[in-house]
Parts: sequence; C-alpha cells; structure tokens
Amino acid sequence: MNRPTNDTFLRALLRQQCDYTPVWLMRQAGRYLSEYNATRAKAGSFMKLAQSPALACEVTLQPVERFNLDAAILFSDILTIPDAMGLGLSFVAGEGPKFAQPVDSEEAVNALFVPDPDEKLRYVIDAVSTIRQALNNRVPLIGFSGSPFTLACYMVEGGSSKDFRKIKTMMYTRPDLLHRILEINAQSVATYLNAQIAAGAQAVQIFDTWGGALASAAFEEFSLAYIRKVISLLIRERDGERIPVICFTKGADQWVEQIAQSGADAVGVDWCSDLAQVRRRTGDKVALQGNLDPMVLFGSEALIRQEVRRVIDNFGKVGAGGHVFNLGHGINQFTPPESVAILVDEVHQYSRQYHQ
Amino acid sequence: MNRPTNDTFLRALLRQQCDYTPVWLMRQAGRYLSEYNATRAKAGSFMKLAQSPALACEVTLQPVERFNLDAAILFSDILTIPDAMGLGLSFVAGEGPKFAQPVDSEEAVNALFVPDPDEKLRYVIDAVSTIRQALNNRVPLIGFSGSPFTLACYMVEGGSSKDFRKIKTMMYTRPDLLHRILEINAQSVATYLNAQIAAGAQAVQIFDTWGGALASAAFEEFSLAYIRKVISLLIRERDGERIPVICFTKGADQWVEQIAQSGADAVGVDWCSDLAQVRRRTGDKVALQGNLDPMVLFGSEALIRQEVRRVIDNFGKVGAGGHVFNLGHGINQFTPPESVAILVDEVHQYSRQYHQ
Repeated sequence: MNRPTNDTFLRALLRQQCDYTPVWLMRQAGRYLSEYNATRAKAGSFMKLAQSPALACEVTLQPVERFNLDAAILFSDILTIPDAMGLGLSFVAGEGPKFAQPVDSEEAVNALFVPDPDEKLRYVIDAVSTIRQALNNRVPLIGFSGSPFTLACYMVEGGSSKDFRKIKTMMYTRPDLLHRILEINAQSVATYLNAQIAAGAQAVQIFDTWGGALASAAFEEFSLAYIRKVISLLIRERDGERIPVICFTKGADQWVEQIAQSGADAVGVDWCSDLAQVRRRTGDKVALQGNLDPMVLFGSEALIRQEVRRVIDNFGKVGAGGHVFNLGHGINQFTPPESVAILVDEVHQYSRQYHQ
Repeated sequence: MNRPTNDTFLRALLRQQCDYTPVWLMRQAGRYLSEYNATRAKAGSFMKLAQSPALACEVTLQPVERFNLDAAILFSDILTIPDAMGLGLSFVAGEGPKFAQPVDSEEAVNALFVPDPDEKLRYVIDAVSTIRQALNNRVPLIGFSGSPFTLACYMVEGGSSKDFRKIKTMMYTRPDLLHRILEINAQSVATYLNAQIAAGAQAVQIFDTWGGALASAAFEEFSLAYIRKVISLLIRERDGERIPVICFTKGADQWVEQIAQSGADAVGVDWCSDLAQVRRRTGDKVALQGNLDPMVLFGSEALIRQEVRRVIDNFGKVGAGGHVFNLGHGINQFTPPESVAILVDEVHQYSRQYHQ
C-alpha cells in the first residue's frame, strides 16, 4: 500500500501543498469512449460488465491510459447494494434501472438486510483489488457508493423518477418506514465502502444524486444525517495514510455549510454554484471538488480553455483550501473525447500559478 | 377595472397590510380535478382546450369555485408564443410537448419574429377578458408567460430535455445565435404580457422553469438579463392600480439576491430553499411566494397542517415583507383534491397571527 507516484489528488483533498490542481471526471469511464463501448459489447450487457472484475478493471483504466487524469474511479453501478439485498436490478434500454421487487410495503422494508460485501458484492471488492494491481500505483483509486437516501429513492420508486412521488409519500405518511430503510442503507453503505477501502480504495466518494430533491428541512433529516452516519463508520486511515471522503450532493448550494460539517474532507459542487461563494461559506474547512458545466465540452478548444480557467479563477489561490477539478455532474455520453484531453491539459497548465 | 373584492393577493405582492396570508397554487387548474378532466374530454385535446376562450375560462374558474383561493391564474400553455412563431406545437402522449420545426440552424433563427398578440395569440387574450368577466372581481386574475430562456430551451431542443445538450451546445458554440433568439423572445414575452394586462390581468408571473439548469455565470447572461428586459418593458400601472410582477426561477436559491434586483415585485421560491434565509438575503426588497413541497399534499390532514405551519413560521412575521403562500412547483396530477382544501384552510387560519 505505497503512496501513489502521482498523489496530487489525495494531497488536494487533504488541503496539502500541490504543484497544480488535480483533475478527474465523474463517469470518466463511459460511453463517450469507443474503447469502453468495445469492452461493453464484449461483456454482452452493462450488468455483466460491472460484475466482471477483469472487465471492470479494463474500463476503469481506459480513461487513465488515454488522458492525463490524476485519479481513477472504480467502474461499477450505483445500485449494487439494493441488488445485493435481492431487489432484482435490471436495465431496460432507454428507461434506466428497474427493480423487480421495489420496496413498496412494510413487509418489503422488514425483509431488507445489510449485504455482506464478501458474498453478493464480492465482484465489486475483487474489482477494487484487480484495479489497484493494474494501476500499479500510478494514480490513486477512488471507491464510491450512492448515499443512503439516493439508494432509497431507487428502491422505493422501483427505478428512476421525475417527481419522487412514492418515496415522498412514504416520507410524509410513514417516516418511520423510511428511517428504517435509511438506517439499513447507512450500515450497508459504510460496510461496503470499508470493504472497498480494505481492498485498496485510497479515497471514497458518496454520490447523493437525489438529496437535492428534498425540501430544505427534510434534507438534514432524511439525507445528510445518514451521510454523517456513514462517514462516522468509515475507516479513515490505512497503513498510516488518511483515506479522504468526498460528499457530492447535486443541487445543494443552499446546504453547503451543513455538508461541510458532515465529516467529509471534501464537498462536491455542481455547475450551478459559484465556487468562490461556496468557498467563503465553507471557510476552508473542506476541499472543494468541481464544478465545470459538462456541456462546456461541446464547445470549441478556445471555449473549453476559457471555461476551465474561469472555474480555476473562481476558486482562486489554493493556499489553505484544496481544489480538485471536476465536472459539476457526470460526463455526457456524446462528449467528443478530444475535448477531455483539452480540459485536462488546461487544468494542469493554467492552475500552476495558483499553487505558488 | 375595479379593485377585486378580495385583493389580499395583490396587497401581499406589494407588501401592504393584509389580514392573512393569501394562497394560490401553481397549476391549480389541472388534471387532479375531475371537473378539469371532464372539460378536457369535452374539448377533445389539450391544445383545443387551451385555444378555446370559453373552455379555458371554465377550467380557470374550477379551482376558484371549489377552494377558497385568493387568486385565479389564466389557464394556458407555456409554449403559446413559439407556437405562434410557427414552430408547430403538438403534444405526444407521455412525451410532453414537441415542435415540428425546432430552431436548430441559423436560418431557423433568422425566421423567428415577434408574434402579434392580436393575431395568432388572440385566443389567449380573449380568454383573459372572458375570465375577467366571469370572475366578476371576486379575486384577481394572474397572467403569465415562460421566460425568454425557458421558451428558448423548448424551441431549440424541440421539446423537453434532461440535459439541455442542444441549447447549451448553441450557447457554448454560437452564443450570438442564442442571444438573437432571447432578444426576440424578450420582445415577444413583453408584448404578450402587456396584451394580457390590457385585457385585464391584474398581476403577471414569469415562469423561468429552466433557468436553474444554467451554470452560475451563465444564468445572469442568458436568463436573468432577458427577464429584466421583459420587466422593464411591462405596463406597471393600469387605471391607477400597480400591476405586480412575480419572477419564479426553479432551483435558483444561489441567485435570489440578483433575482430580487430584477425589477420584479415578488420572487417565487421552490421547496428546496429556506424561506427565512431567502428573506434575510433579499432584505424585504420584494415579496416572496412559496414554498411548500407539492408532495406534502400526499400526507395526512395533520401532516399537511403541520407542514403549512412550518412554511408560515419559516417566513415569520409579515410586517414589511409580503408573503404569498404557494407550492414550490406545480401541483402533482395525482394529488387528492381534499388535501388542497385542507391546505387553503390552514394557510388562512394559521397565518392571521403573523399579520397583527
């Protein structure tokens, strides 16, 4: 478990001195890359790809080989945990994820359990160790999970949703049931992330994709409280190295002070926020990660470079606060890969002046 | 053009003394009401319903007859303006609005024009006067339009979108084209709203449904600047009465200070914001409208009353700042109508203590 040759990403998360701003992209291993599509075709389906440690390793490394990225992120699905709980995950073309057994009754809630990562989630943990070996300490590997609330959204809705009517009806009529789901999810997420850390993940990110759909008062009670619980249960040091935690809630500008108090080392910020303002409000208590609009990658080279500089200028001089460059959301599947190379180049070149 | 018998809504928007907090609900005339579905069936289609002044009047009045609401809102579609520009609006079941001629080229941009409200939009203006007559000054009538940017989203995408890839690609590659569309939309929206005001609308709301999808710096340039332009062109007084303007941008907590400076009398706030904080940040310069989570209406009577009180408490003592109670977004089509009656009752009863 040596320190990676390029540890800039880990240093930035811990607000230590760096030579430049590190960069990785949410969903960097994905459909915008022809080599990813080739591996996926070979696997036969998305689920088979995610469940094969060798193929998951292959696609995890693809963007790291192609671009000069400062971190790799485990290729997996956000819904592995509820699938391991027996809810029956499948993907319907054009419709996204579906659960055969949604959690739509008190009986279904009672049947939930914390999956043992060594059993039903073994393929993920094996992928982590396979990837660590293949990476050979070039850059750090990020593990990840959905947040307890975000997992609950899919579990209760049975798939994606526009209005979250089912989970919110449960929240407003049977909050006790939702709290039971969230409690089990929090235990499951912590156990799962700890297994990823034990297998070699050097940082972890919690994706709270749907926390931003909650009303202001409900966000603390139904999402953030359980993220805090997960973080409190995580292994934070391994072989003398701190394992940083990133918390990313989409659409959460109004709550960044609270998220910065969650115990996370870094807060992910979407493209709708002003980084300078978020930094002032969080007062260098955490590193910030973000926040380029993913659609900028559909612009010209000059535009991409200009918008990258705008984000870096917006964060400002690094000093006591760490900045990890990222998109404000996952990369779009139609993104030209050349745009990513331009982005990475500009982040590395332009940011050096802010690190002196 | 007399003052309505119940002018509480207008007084609240202008931050004048009221006896209680007025309430109306976005999309209050809609599919959750059986009488609406009956009228729609009679019309044959949504477009025919919207285009018949008599039927539009009928559905506008339905929620006012059924509940003790403090305002009526013109029943119409948000996309009447681009339809009048000749883009060919239709509704595909389950898919939302579609334009036969999306604005996808420079030629298409060049072909755009400001529609004359007396011609292609005559049915809307006639609906306004028909409704004013039928309302007989019981409560004020709100006119409305989509914001220039929100209309542009549908025009360029050709319908609804999850990622706004087409309009953002235009924004990042040909901002000059998008600015031309927005300029024409701003002129069109102002002309359209002024025609509604001339026909009897006593307040107007600008729905900036998609402004919140923009990156922080882009919001000012591509959405708010054009809303400001619309507001500057509006008739603000008619027969000695001020015509208040409400600006509602969804997902805009981070920009409320700027929106409060737009010239609007009131700012609509979605359910993700904390009203007390928004009020502190906007400093009683504007009235606030909002912000109950629409999904609360799926809860029990006790829960609805509790959450209504939470919103009213959150705003606090009315004094110099006006509060109009509303949902943070349109009412859901599966809402039980009885829940609306409970909401209205609780708003009226509970808010009296804050108005002394």
